[in-house]
Amino acid sequence: MIIAIGLYPGFTALDALGPYQVFTTVPNAEVVLCAAETGTLNDDQKLLNLHVDATFADVPRPDILLVPGGPASLALARDNAPIVDWVRDAHPHTRWTSSVCTGSLILGAAGLLDDLPAATHWHFRDELAKYGARPTDRRVVVDGRIATGAGSSAGLDLALTLVAEFAGPELAQGIQLALEYDPNPPFDAGSPSKAAKPIVDVVSFMMDAFEKEWSRDNSTAGRMAAPRGA
Amino acid sequence: MIIAIGLYPGFTALDALGPYQVFTTVPNAEVVLCAAETGTLNDDQKLLNLHVDATFADVPRPDILLVPGGPASLALARDNAPIVDWVRDAHPHTRWTSSVCTGSLILGAAGLLDDLPAATHWHFRDELAKYGARPTDRRVVVDGRIATGAGSSAGLDLALTLVAEFAGPELAQGIQLALEYDPNPPFDAGSPSKAAKPIVDVVSFMMDAFEKEWSRDNSTAGRMAAPRGA
Repeated sequence: MIIAIGLYPGFTALDALGPYQVFTTVPNAEVVLCAAETGTLNDDQKLLNLHVDATFADVPRPDILLVPGGPASLALARDNAPIVDWVRDAHPHTRWTSSVCTGSLILGAAGLLDDLPAATHWHFRDELAKYGARPTDRRVVVDGRIATGAGSSAGLDLALTLVAEFAGPELAQGIQLALEYDPNPPFDAGSPSKAAKPIVDVVSFMMDAFEKEWSRDNSTAGRMAAPRGA
Repeated sequence: MIIAIGLYPGFTALDALGPYQVFTTVPNAEVVLCAAETGTLNDDQKLLNLHVDATFADVPRPDILLVPGGPASLALARDNAPIVDWVRDAHPHTRWTSSVCTGSLILGAAGLLDDLPAATHWHFRDELAKYGARPTDRRVVVDGRIATGAGSSAGLDLALTLVAEFAGPELAQGIQLALEYDPNPPFDAGSPSKAAKPIVDVVSFMMDAFEKEWSRDNSTAGRMAAPRGA
C-alpha cells in the first residue's frame, strides 16, 4: 500500500500533515511525500522548510494519492502545472485519488470531477465549480474512487474515512484513539453556517488577499521557492 | 508576539503542526520553529525532513512557548535534555508555556507542573504523574501561565484557546473558520472512555512498543538524527 502525498510550494501544512499523521500510523502502509522536484519546499507561511526527496515521477502508481490545498493551488490548477499531470496519469490506477481543501481544484483541473459531487474549502466552492464539479457543503465526499475533503482540518476526517474502508473500522478507531482525536474546539464557528456573518466576511476577504499575494509573488508557481533568507 | 515551537528528533508532526497552523494565521504573530541544533530534523516517522534554522538559544524569550509530544519525549524528559533547560529558563518570562501530548513530560521535567493539574496523552498520564503533576482527563488545561493539551490532535483546541485569550474570541473563531475546523470524525473513539476496550488495549501496547523502539534506536536522544538514507 503506497500512499503518495503530492506537495508544492505554497501548500497548507495542516492539509497535508493531518492525513500524513493518520496514514503513517497504518501498519505496512508506505507514505511518500513527493513534489515536482526534489529539494527544499516551503509551505504557504514560508516557515516549514521541508526536504522532499521523491518526485512525482518516482511515485507514478500510488494506491492512494492525496493533494493538499493551499493558496498556491489555484494557480497550479489554472496553469496545468506538473502536479495536474501527475494526478491525471496516476488516477486510472489508484484505489483512491483524494484531496483536502483547495487540493480539489487540482483534481478538477485534471478532469476528474466532471459532474461529480465534491468537497472543498467553503470559500472556494465557486472556483471548484469552474472545473465542472458539483461543490457540496459536506465535510468528506467519497464518490467511487474519488475522495475530497473540506477545508484544512477535514483532512483528518477524510483520512480516517479511507483507513476504515481499506483496513477496517477497528484500525481507524485505533488511530483516532492514538491521536486522541476527540475534538472539542472552544467555539462552534468552524463552518460558514455556524460562524457569525462578520467573521465569515472578514475571513473571506483575507483568504482572497492571501491567494492574490501568492499568485503575485510566485509567478513561477509550482517551481521550488528559494529557502527563507536566501 | 513571538511564538516558539520547540522541536526535537522524534516529535509527532501533528502535535506541532496543528498549533503551527493556528498560530501562523494570527496577524503579527511571529512563529519560530527551533531545536537544540540547526539542521535537518526528523519526526517520529523519519519521513518529515524538516530544516530548522533557529536554535533554542536564538529564542530565549518567546511570548508563547510550545513543546509537542512524540515517542522521543519520554527519554528527553528523563535525561534532562537541552529542551528541558530551554523550557526552564524561558518559562519565567513567557506569557504561556504550553505543551501538546507527551510534550507535558518535558514541562514536568523542567519542574513546571509540581502539584498542578495537567493534560497529556491519555496513555501517559502515569508517566506525567512521576513529575509531580496531577494528570487530568481534560482536553485542554490552562492553569495560570501553563497550558497543556491532551494527545496529538488536542493541539488545535489548545492553540485556539490561547488565541482567544490573547487576541479575542473573534479572531479565534475566524481562524477556526479559515481552517474549516468543524470536526466530524467518522467514529466516536477518540478517547479511552469512548473506544472499545480491545482497541484501547491494542493501542496501549503499540504506543509502548513505539516508545521503546525510539528509546533503543536513539540513544543519543535530542541529537540530530541522520537524514533518511544517510
